Amino acid sequence: MPTFQFLPFLALLGTLGFLCVVFTGFWSQHWRGGFAWDGSAKMFNWHPVFMVTGMLVLYGAAVLVYRVPSSWVGPKLPWKLLHAALTLAAFVLVVLGLVAVFGFHNDQGIPNMYSLHSWLGLAAVLLFSCQWLMGFATFLLPWSPAWLRIIYKPIHVFFGSTILALAMAASISGINEKLFFSLTNKTVPYAKLPPEAWFANSLGMLILVFGLLVLWALAMPAWKRPESESLEARQPLLH
Amino acid sequence: MPTFQFLPFLALLGTLGFLCVVFTGFWSQHWRGGFAWDGSAKMFNWHPVFMVTGMLVLYGAAVLVYRVPSSWVGPKLPWKLLHAALTLAAFVLVVLGLVAVFGFHNDQGIPNMYSLHSWLGLAAVLLFSCQWLMGFATFLLPWSPAWLRIIYKPIHVFFGSTILALAMAASISGINEKLFFSLTNKTVPYAKLPPEAWFANSLGMLILVFGLLVLWALAMPAWKRPESESLEARQPLLH
Repeated sequence: MPTFQFLPFLALLGTLGFLCVVFTGFWSQHWRGGFAWDGSAKMFNWHPVFMVTGMLVLYGAAVLVYRVPSSWVGPKLPWKLLHAALTLAAFVLVVLGLVAVFGFHNDQGIPNMYSLHSWLGLAAVLLFSCQWLMGFATFLLPWSPAWLRIIYKPIHVFFGSTILALAMAASISGINEKLFFSLTNKTVPYAKLPPEAWFANSLGMLILVFGLLVLWALAMPAWKRPESESLEARQPLLH
Repeated sequence: MPTFQFLPFLALLGTLGFLCVVFTGFWSQHWRGGFAWDGSAKMFNWHPVFMVTGMLVLYGAAVLVYRVPSSWVGPKLPWKLLHAALTLAAFVLVVLGLVAVFGFHNDQGIPNMYSLHSWLGLAAVLLFSCQWLMGFATFLLPWSPAWLRIIYKPIHVFFGSTILALAMAASISGINEKLFFSLTNKTVPYAKLPPEAWFANSLGMLILVFGLLVLWALAMPAWKRPESESLEARQPLLH
């Protein structure tokens, strides 16, 4: 693998993540009528903003915490707390994002949970809830046994990437379906590629690039925290 | 990481991949009127079947060739040829899949290349073409220089996973949009979750699981072919 410096790469990711949030907000504000919390389509507009900010960008920041080289030395607890706090903040935004879409649907009499987008999104959120609770119970509660931490850690790491991939798939199918809902023959059809379609398609590609780079950073062996908690390391050298 | 045996895992992947193809074919045959090559919606039906078979399942098989432990010993050329042949077969199916959708669109006067699905799909296909050509020129042509192989290999590996992720995103957004096109108020709307919607949503989830497991198998350090071509290995021990 070519060796990249982690921190400049993190700055690139931060910029891309920031752009994802700003683009999503701009789409809703400029083309979809802005924001409100009243059961209207303006309430729905919070859904993509909260989901992209929470489930992708904040979540992406949270999963990369242990890749910061300064987290590899000294006590691990502050980094664990940062990871838990960032994922909790992401989770709060995700719940608000769900309230925004269910509130809009219920107010307008639109059925819930029928599209592939909604299935993917709900799968991501349910797995994320389990992941947070299991992570808290296993890695933060001081009385959780060492064998549980050792067994559960690779599972937690695996689902960390899986949940992000689910969130990416949900975001992309969500943008795609929103454009089919909004750009109809009554306005300018999606098929005519009006500026909004160009913009939101580009947002979809940007989200994909951001998510793939986070997954890639997670998978890079050189950026992984050296294992100090393994069974071998716990055993004295001369035994 | 928990240690799994590669070959049983490959058998699981093979089963899942086979199910992806069968489910896609069944969807088109049972609910979408079957297959033809006449510019009608029946011509379009080849599009998902060719794309899922080529861009996901055959491609997935091709990228895992070097993870088969017996490829690690003996001459590498037969495995390279197998990798090139499988990706070429995948590429032929992908081109047929494009012909199926463009033929249908052009015959029916439907615009091309406007949805996020189409952008993701085209990005996947264009990258795949470059990847195949660069791979052929670098790793199969006997006169390509060693420094080029060394520089290009991590790039080829990186884009191998990226193209699969793009193909997954394209498949999922494609299934989502096809259901919105097909299940309208004239038939049974998607929102009422008729059996076709359940079936195709499940197909989308199955494709995601298959693709994620392939990506995970690619990323597993223990399943990677030990590096014998690195600069270090080329240098004599006593120098």
